[in-house]
Amino acid sequence: MTKPLKIIPLGGLNEIGKNMTAYEYGGDIIVVDAGVAFPDDEMFGVDLVIPDTAYLVKNKSKVKAFFITHGHEDHIGALPYVMRDFDCPVYCTRLTAGILEIRLIEHKMLDKVKLVRIDAGDTVDASAFTVEAIHVNHSIADSVAFAIRCPAGLVVQTGDYKIDPTPIQGEITDLTRFGELGREGIDLLLADSTNVEREGFAMSERMVGKTLEELFSGCDKRIIVSTFASNIHRIQQIINAAWKNGRKVAVTGRSMENILNVASGLGYISIPYDTMIDLSKIKQYPDHKICVISTGSQGEPMSALYRMAFSGHRQITISESDLVILSSSAIPGNEKSIYRLINELFRKGAEVIYEKLDAVHVSGHACKEELKMMLALTKPKNFMPVHGEFRHLKAHAELACECGVDPGHVFISDIGRVLEMYPGGNCKLNGTVPSGKLLVDGFGVGDVGSVVLRDRKLLSQDGLITVVVTINGMDGSLLAGPDIVSRGFVYMKESEEIMDEIKETVFESLGDCQRQHVSDAATIRSTISDDVKELLYHKTKRSPIVLPVVQII
Amino acid sequence: MTKPLKIIPLGGLNEIGKNMTAYEYGGDIIVVDAGVAFPDDEMFGVDLVIPDTAYLVKNKSKVKAFFITHGHEDHIGALPYVMRDFDCPVYCTRLTAGILEIRLIEHKMLDKVKLVRIDAGDTVDASAFTVEAIHVNHSIADSVAFAIRCPAGLVVQTGDYKIDPTPIQGEITDLTRFGELGREGIDLLLADSTNVEREGFAMSERMVGKTLEELFSGCDKRIIVSTFASNIHRIQQIINAAWKNGRKVAVTGRSMENILNVASGLGYISIPYDTMIDLSKIKQYPDHKICVISTGSQGEPMSALYRMAFSGHRQITISESDLVILSSSAIPGNEKSIYRLINELFRKGAEVIYEKLDAVHVSGHACKEELKMMLALTKPKNFMPVHGEFRHLKAHAELACECGVDPGHVFISDIGRVLEMYPGGNCKLNGTVPSGKLLVDGFGVGDVGSVVLRDRKLLSQDGLITVVVTINGMDGSLLAGPDIVSRGFVYMKESEEIMDEIKETVFESLGDCQRQHVSDAATIRSTISDDVKELLYHKTKRSPIVLPVVQII
Repeated sequence: MTKPLKIIPLGGLNEIGKNMTAYEYGGDIIVVDAGVAFPDDEMFGVDLVIPDTAYLVKNKSKVKAFFITHGHEDHIGALPYVMRDFDCPVYCTRLTAGILEIRLIEHKMLDKVKLVRIDAGDTVDASAFTVEAIHVNHSIADSVAFAIRCPAGLVVQTGDYKIDPTPIQGEITDLTRFGELGREGIDLLLADSTNVEREGFAMSERMVGKTLEELFSGCDKRIIVSTFASNIHRIQQIINAAWKNGRKVAVTGRSMENILNVASGLGYISIPYDTMIDLSKIKQYPDHKICVISTGSQGEPMSALYRMAFSGHRQITISESDLVILSSSAIPGNEKSIYRLINELFRKGAEVIYEKLDAVHVSGHACKEELKMMLALTKPKNFMPVHGEFRHLKAHAELACECGVDPGHVFISDIGRVLEMYPGGNCKLNGTVPSGKLLVDGFGVGDVGSVVLRDRKLLSQDGLITVVVTINGMDGSLLAGPDIVSRGFVYMKESEEIMDEIKETVFESLGDCQRQHVSDAATIRSTISDDVKELLYHKTKRSPIVLPVVQII
Repeated sequence: MTKPLKIIPLGGLNEIGKNMTAYEYGGDIIVVDAGVAFPDDEMFGVDLVIPDTAYLVKNKSKVKAFFITHGHEDHIGALPYVMRDFDCPVYCTRLTAGILEIRLIEHKMLDKVKLVRIDAGDTVDASAFTVEAIHVNHSIADSVAFAIRCPAGLVVQTGDYKIDPTPIQGEITDLTRFGELGREGIDLLLADSTNVEREGFAMSERMVGKTLEELFSGCDKRIIVSTFASNIHRIQQIINAAWKNGRKVAVTGRSMENILNVASGLGYISIPYDTMIDLSKIKQYPDHKICVISTGSQGEPMSALYRMAFSGHRQITISESDLVILSSSAIPGNEKSIYRLINELFRKGAEVIYEKLDAVHVSGHACKEELKMMLALTKPKNFMPVHGEFRHLKAHAELACECGVDPGHVFISDIGRVLEMYPGGNCKLNGTVPSGKLLVDGFGVGDVGSVVLRDRKLLSQDGLITVVVTINGMDGSLLAGPDIVSRGFVYMKESEEIMDEIKETVFESLGDCQRQHVSDAATIRSTISDDVKELLYHKTKRSPIVLPVVQII
């Protein structure tokens, strides 16, 4: 009987098929990407969300290699966690490897992970699989798609991509190769759906360069540009604009410094002679001779730009003599933080340019016409939209049908859902594997679950009240307390009245228990809890967590 | 000496001059609007943000009248709270009054507030002030601007407005009257800045009607349309589209039912005979004969549409035979909730149309060209941009200068900041009054402050650990405990190890205290707290609140 290739999206939160995808054929598994998702608003206190790799760990001996499409956090961020369980090689391009090394060093995992550098065009053999890296354009340099071959057929996974005919460095997305593979016959295409809601084409990165040069030209203010640290080509363009206008460039923000070191060391950024200066030296130059490149374009508290705006940056204070450019767009969910930052920069007197006002950012993901182009070139027999929320996948599925893919051959999968592909290209969704998300909080991976999150949410809403009493086990009489301590409920120092009422209620609860000869701690606790909750809801219409502690001696 | 008119923005959170504006001339004060702001992400557990009216309360005898521009929450929502302190009349148009009555009834304040109904075009005398209401278009019917006269001069406050040449009901914004006042001489204009970042004109509400009719025409699915309950004209258009296509209309969601009652009772909505049916009757009709109008367009949990999507609505279950239209846009901050809702509707098989896919929504606020038109017609001597975050006001200020307002006569004010206007139209910003925001949480108004919010934030991040011990006051020996109770830190049942370590640490802390003959509860508490915090950070890299309770008997 012929074996199928199984394609299994793993990881992710709202987006499907982005953070990690497993390919299983017989006794072999390869994994594409190992990224993090960022916690939802309701995931209080959670730092990161990583894929649950239980299925891979269970099949540890099958896992032959990891392949990484590019160096963004949502594709590499989970690797330091995941690779605690595997010792197979990780294949990626040189810049991706450079960025990964920073992460691995932070996690003291550098010597445990075998990074293998490849270039676009290279082909890697990994047991039953042969994997070819294909050059694509994206908002980080050195991004690749993968053409994955095994006896069951040929699958192409685009990774994050756009089609930029005038990239800052290197070539346009390798449409030729996609077309050749299409002619050869692609059994299944997995493609980026991020921008399926946007008409037309994503603008070329070079557009931003033009805007930057217009803004820099003739400007007599100090210029501060904030962007994503990983957007090497953007940083290159900022440096170019500064250099052309005779400005020195300084950098602030740890991730920006790290990336710049890696990218310039590997030759992905070329810095004109005598252009970079140390941040501590900027005061030695007049404003119109300075350009600062900064992190913080998402309004992250404690980022360099945030500290500048809110007067917490050691070297830079914002004033009327600053032009601040946010060369970025808002990641959904960050809008309010970003606008808080922009408002504050304006209040400090700066001129501020952001996406809504000028063409200072372009997307790194293919828009509708590019998605169609990819479908037309690859002519896949089967199609699985990935890298998007369900609504994106749905829209991309429809687009594929418009582009000639048979509707019966379009599969919207889900996290943990298995698509089986048989030789000849027959696909079907068939079953699921254990999957899901693991929440990372501090050192803890997976120890924060739904109970803890529910409690954190309740605590955040109305706070908590602790009621402590010590009771004589012989006769139920009160030996100490009730002591009432609250956090996040009301400001205790100004709320003596309600605290007195709580005490009064506890006395009554204990009196009831004593009269009914109740002496077990559990019953006393629940009596106190019920009575105090009722009092508080009645008096304040709030429902803090009530935590009674009863000690019996 | 001539007295100035003082113009003072009150209330608001990120937006300035939106929720409430006070006008003070000598011994008289009038107030325009009394609205709420919605809490920021960091305002855990807060329901609403209302203006701090301390300054008005202090000058209670001066306050002669409230004037309301329109019936949106950010202009009326604080009235039930604010009017606890005042007994002057509240002037507003009929629909605004109808909506206000619902709010006042909810707060048991209906008989305490003297609502006076006016029409656009009416003029009201209020002590030193004469106030004229001017018709404007907005996303709620019966909206007005105010022309405010006093011996110091003439001020126009636009309220929220757009310019719609083809409104669903009534006339275009009364440009003629604005123009007449401009010719007469407006000393100061306060104008809506919401959409200053958008080029061109806001589209006419009628555009949405066209899209709706296209979507309804020939559709054989059940149609569910969600929109803002207060958008009477939108609801009218949905009803029209349903009626034209032979569909019955049912309504779900309390606020939608309320508004529909008020608006149809007052004649702001005209419902064709035999069109409305009760929600419980929809199953008696085939899908293509039904249109449901629903609340929940912002993805609010527990709203009608949310419950439909997540299978919690009693009468409606979403399936492949539903077309769901979200005829609305995302209020900043709600994007993630809305997309969660849309994804779930798609997962349930529905066809979903939302703003990104089709022209199913238009803004109610003037865009750049309309703002210029208002400036050109009113030709104000002085200009104060309002209704916007600082960045909007800044952009609107620049726009005013482009339109010919003298830059020296443009004033960006702030919450509590006083703009003085002298006869002849000389303005200057001069000082501040007590102002700010009051947080409403349950019954409490203003009792949740920065300490409580900080605690709620900390609790939401890493939870809390309570450590309870009872100690013999004579010799410092332990009589009971340590009892460890945690919420939101780790799941206790699975974390015996860390709980044991905490206990161990507390034993050591107590031992230290005993050896050093420390017997006061405060020192013992802080010793326990420090030791446990250190242990937990070291072990877990988390910082829960540690709440030690020491009882000494």
